[in-house]
Amino acid sequence: MIKIVVDAMGGDNSPAVNVQGVAGALNKLKDIHIVLVGDEAQLNPLLERESYDSSRLTVVNATEVISCNEKPTEAIRAKKDSSMVKALDMLRTDNEARALVSIGSTGALLAGTVMRVGRIKGVKRPAFCPILPTVADGIVAICDSGANVDCDPQWLQQFAVMGSLYLTKAFGVQNPRVALLNVGVEEEKGDELRKATFPLLQNTPNINFVGNMESRDLLSGKFDLVVCDGFSGNVLLKSTEGACLELMRMLKHTLMSSFQSKIGALLIKKKLYEVKDKMDYNKYGGAVLLGAAKTVVKGHGSSNGEAVLHCIEQAYVMETNGLVEAIAQEIQR
Amino acid sequence: MIKIVVDAMGGDNSPAVNVQGVAGALNKLKDIHIVLVGDEAQLNPLLERESYDSSRLTVVNATEVISCNEKPTEAIRAKKDSSMVKALDMLRTDNEARALVSIGSTGALLAGTVMRVGRIKGVKRPAFCPILPTVADGIVAICDSGANVDCDPQWLQQFAVMGSLYLTKAFGVQNPRVALLNVGVEEEKGDELRKATFPLLQNTPNINFVGNMESRDLLSGKFDLVVCDGFSGNVLLKSTEGACLELMRMLKHTLMSSFQSKIGALLIKKKLYEVKDKMDYNKYGGAVLLGAAKTVVKGHGSSNGEAVLHCIEQAYVMETNGLVEAIAQEIQR
Repeated sequence: MIKIVVDAMGGDNSPAVNVQGVAGALNKLKDIHIVLVGDEAQLNPLLERESYDSSRLTVVNATEVISCNEKPTEAIRAKKDSSMVKALDMLRTDNEARALVSIGSTGALLAGTVMRVGRIKGVKRPAFCPILPTVADGIVAICDSGANVDCDPQWLQQFAVMGSLYLTKAFGVQNPRVALLNVGVEEEKGDELRKATFPLLQNTPNINFVGNMESRDLLSGKFDLVVCDGFSGNVLLKSTEGACLELMRMLKHTLMSSFQSKIGALLIKKKLYEVKDKMDYNKYGGAVLLGAAKTVVKGHGSSNGEAVLHCIEQAYVMETNGLVEAIAQEIQR
Repeated sequence: MIKIVVDAMGGDNSPAVNVQGVAGALNKLKDIHIVLVGDEAQLNPLLERESYDSSRLTVVNATEVISCNEKPTEAIRAKKDSSMVKALDMLRTDNEARALVSIGSTGALLAGTVMRVGRIKGVKRPAFCPILPTVADGIVAICDSGANVDCDPQWLQQFAVMGSLYLTKAFGVQNPRVALLNVGVEEEKGDELRKATFPLLQNTPNINFVGNMESRDLLSGKFDLVVCDGFSGNVLLKSTEGACLELMRMLKHTLMSSFQSKIGALLIKKKLYEVKDKMDYNKYGGAVLLGAAKTVVKGHGSSNGEAVLHCIEQAYVMETNGLVEAIAQEIQR
């Protein structure tokens, strides 16, 4: 049995979507036990609507919620009875608890994990590693996407090692192609950080470093993992998501502007949804906080029930395949 | 009469598109004189096909071409008879020459401008400032988009000053809204560079600093100028362009996959082109190298004739409105 702690609060549509995701996960995965942490007064009526194996669910009451507007470190210190702090403490103190899933504040989850759960021995900094779909029907991971805005080259080297293991253990990607985010593909390109990191990556055993990647090629399908500092990784992730959303919005607006194109839009509606569906991050699980002492998965704040289910499934697969142990082994080598 | 030097070589479709753009500019703008620098053997037959006022065109022969694959500084030093070096030297030595337009190697143009033309007195580093269309039918400028990959806070402050003047002088944007590219909107967000730059921008006279911007909001129309180091600016620009291109490609591919959607695609074809046209950088001129002692405009390597014309027009408008003098005055204040 794999025990997974789920923070029930903190997302845009929490706790409703969290309850839906948890019920779905209990029905889909027969050897998980879920500890759902949040406001019982809200959770119980929502749980009553779902059907699931209640012997594998434990509800833990927590009266406070950490919002995205709070300063992360202060919130973790002050709100001892928040769902996130209680979930983190449960992950730390319960030896059987293997993973935590939250769609709450990213900053608080990062600060709380570092402060209350800790890192894998030898890992310099935990890093967020979200997944995006590519045009080639595959996926691409970005590490780090925002946990560490100022980075040393050695940290980026560890991001490459951890991200490679993650892709293999969670998604079955064999020998993932690792690229360094840069302003050009030539070896000598980049700022001081990139110039120092390139030779390090070339000399890292057990990763498949294929060279520099320009940001325009993120979705091309030519790379499996993009290594970067958290500042530029955040710019890369959010500008890609933002451009896709704005373009779809512009397209919708333009198609509704004439009678003929409205008819056309009706005919292509299904196909448009196919594209939209493909670009939907809800399907791809959350951003894993690689390097934490136990598995931590951060789902999008606007996740729906399906997305929460995917996050739980992702944590389950990672635990089944021993990702944390594999990272510990490789980092200490 | 405003004299503008045009590097005829170095683009994907040079010199044909350069000749088209030059002829178009001579016909559109009656008080410009153009000096076209490139291989006469190639230029003359192309020029014969066009009709324009030949009394306002001078062709200067240059036998070499700097390609995008060459190391910029070495190429500028070695290829004395290249179109780019000759054009840069003409800009420096001819007092009447006011501006240079090139669609050749970005790195070489930057290195060559710094080495052979120099900076405006007081400007710490010249910076590239490209323009993108927004969903709100406006434009947004990014400064720096790649000239300086490692930056001091004071440089970013100057980018804000120069970029603001550019938007006003070249596009008539009054009181342009300046944002700092960051990983969150809150004042305390960011890496060391952003934390040091934020208060500097708050205390810079004559700019309209509106706070931090997340990369997902680049095309939102809420900002006129985004200030950043050249590394993250390059990531921002190229990932936005890349995501739009990949999404349009994915859409096209999906629409062609069923009979019904093919019919639909026919009906919306015109509207799709409207969107594509809107996102087409060829219409928005080139990236200006702000802070150079004379006006330098870098067009996209894949520019067509229309795009070259827009770059020349852009240089003309900037010169007509005295951008270089305005920057010199504001920086020395």
